[in-house]
Amino acid sequence: MHDVIIIGAGPAGLAAAAYCLRKRLDILVIAPDLGGKANYRMQVAGLEGYEHITGEEVVRKFRSQLQYLDFAQVKDKAATIEAVPGAKYETFLVTTAAGQRFPARSVILATGVDPIRMGAPGEDKALGRGLSYSAISHAPLFWERDTAVVGNGELALRSAAELATVARRVFLVAPDGLVESPLKRKLEVLDNVTILEHYRLTGVQTNGYVKAVTLAGPDGSEQEMPVTGVFGELGWKPQSKLLAGLADLDAEGFVMVDDRCRTSRPGLLAAGDVTNAFGEQVLIATGEGAKAALAAYDYLLKLEA
Amino acid sequence: MHDVIIIGAGPAGLAAAAYCLRKRLDILVIAPDLGGKANYRMQVAGLEGYEHITGEEVVRKFRSQLQYLDFAQVKDKAATIEAVPGAKYETFLVTTAAGQRFPARSVILATGVDPIRMGAPGEDKALGRGLSYSAISHAPLFWERDTAVVGNGELALRSAAELATVARRVFLVAPDGLVESPLKRKLEVLDNVTILEHYRLTGVQTNGYVKAVTLAGPDGSEQEMPVTGVFGELGWKPQSKLLAGLADLDAEGFVMVDDRCRTSRPGLLAAGDVTNAFGEQVLIATGEGAKAALAAYDYLLKLEA
Repeated sequence: MHDVIIIGAGPAGLAAAAYCLRKRLDILVIAPDLGGKANYRMQVAGLEGYEHITGEEVVRKFRSQLQYLDFAQVKDKAATIEAVPGAKYETFLVTTAAGQRFPARSVILATGVDPIRMGAPGEDKALGRGLSYSAISHAPLFWERDTAVVGNGELALRSAAELATVARRVFLVAPDGLVESPLKRKLEVLDNVTILEHYRLTGVQTNGYVKAVTLAGPDGSEQEMPVTGVFGELGWKPQSKLLAGLADLDAEGFVMVDDRCRTSRPGLLAAGDVTNAFGEQVLIATGEGAKAALAAYDYLLKLEA
Repeated sequence: MHDVIIIGAGPAGLAAAAYCLRKRLDILVIAPDLGGKANYRMQVAGLEGYEHITGEEVVRKFRSQLQYLDFAQVKDKAATIEAVPGAKYETFLVTTAAGQRFPARSVILATGVDPIRMGAPGEDKALGRGLSYSAISHAPLFWERDTAVVGNGELALRSAAELATVARRVFLVAPDGLVESPLKRKLEVLDNVTILEHYRLTGVQTNGYVKAVTLAGPDGSEQEMPVTGVFGELGWKPQSKLLAGLADLDAEGFVMVDDRCRTSRPGLLAAGDVTNAFGEQVLIATGEGAKAALAAYDYLLKLEA
């Protein structure tokens, strides 16, 4: 029986593991690989290796702490979590994709999110080579460059507004049309922003790096726009299905947590992008992972022996 | 007119400054010195320089980023914040102790907390030499040592329980008696914990490091106990008086913030230990500072031009 099973090993999961180890808890990390989103950086032609991800060193240190603790990790995906009633407290039983079963007194879910993809040919090949799903993270790299943002909601508007402060041009492509908001009105008057409602992204062209996008207008006509950055800002899908039926999720499927990363079920915690907490930055996720570890420690401390 | 004035330069304030700079905001940091609590580490006889504070390198990097930006900092305390009504948004006017006045469109308060002191002779001299106000931060250093915890509430119980997992002995000194709780019942049966209700700490003896404490019993008789660690766990006083009347504080004076570090007043944010958010760890405070910076950026983005 472990004290804590941590599912996921991105910045939040690794920070949770490091803080649990520091508290001398018996942990098991279940994840296909160690590192998560912090493994991923953006390459832009002419700026290779330029980007610095704040918090990355911290994550690297946490990973190397865990790397050699073979007994504390299982390289697999978690397939299910069951809550097993007990006399004094619930036990959580985690089954991996390969069918291994591990019991624990508490679980921290740190499985992150997947971006909603744009579904255009060339999208996969361009990923990390000018194409990303987070303008907020990578905008500073696109100083004086031409860029396209794809999305219909607040996220797309915010990304376009942030890019507009650094990029030469921003094409805001809204396949379903944009939501009305003060931010939309602000974008409409900016010289370097072009709003393209009811246009669709039909292709991403690369020559090693993104060099252009193809757009289809409302009348179906196609045109190629030379850009070096493409940002898919259609939203995120939280990887929270393991908690379905166990703890409260919000309407979009994010795990609802309080300010200590506690879900609606005692002993079950969640941290990082999979939760409804604000974030998307490595350093915020590590802070949330640390919080979850301390909350788990607190929970275990108070369990009747 | 600055975009953001950041008051305080501990881990939360420095992280907020770094993220604001990354967003190209015009900032001013007002603080007596750069570094806050991260400047402070515990020294224990035989373990000098042993302690590693997770997140310290991040804070050091943030500090060195700011250090040479003279235009972005004022080395003074903030004395008052006023909210000046405007046609489109409020402006905040910060006055320093020396009487300088700075206007900004938003403010991040990151002034931290002060511990409630035990008030025993020798307390100041022992600080950082075996005496601290956070067992949660320093417990691992006291492996197989004798320690004393002073306090009456949940905080003291939690600190004693955590120390009990590493220390040889824990004397839990509760001047006002302990609150009833499951954790208290758990401590009562631990072999290495001695609960001393209605005892008072009357002195801390040092010879370079803490070597003993003097305790007065309910009958007034004094005795000396050899210990190498003393933890004041009477609680924290948030340094939030600058926001009194401007934003909501909780019953203990902590600034009430939402999950994006926003106070009850638009444009006014708070991060780190001064808030009601869970923390007390450097890495959590830096995550909160980053959140506050992104929330301030978001607020400014949406202000009508």
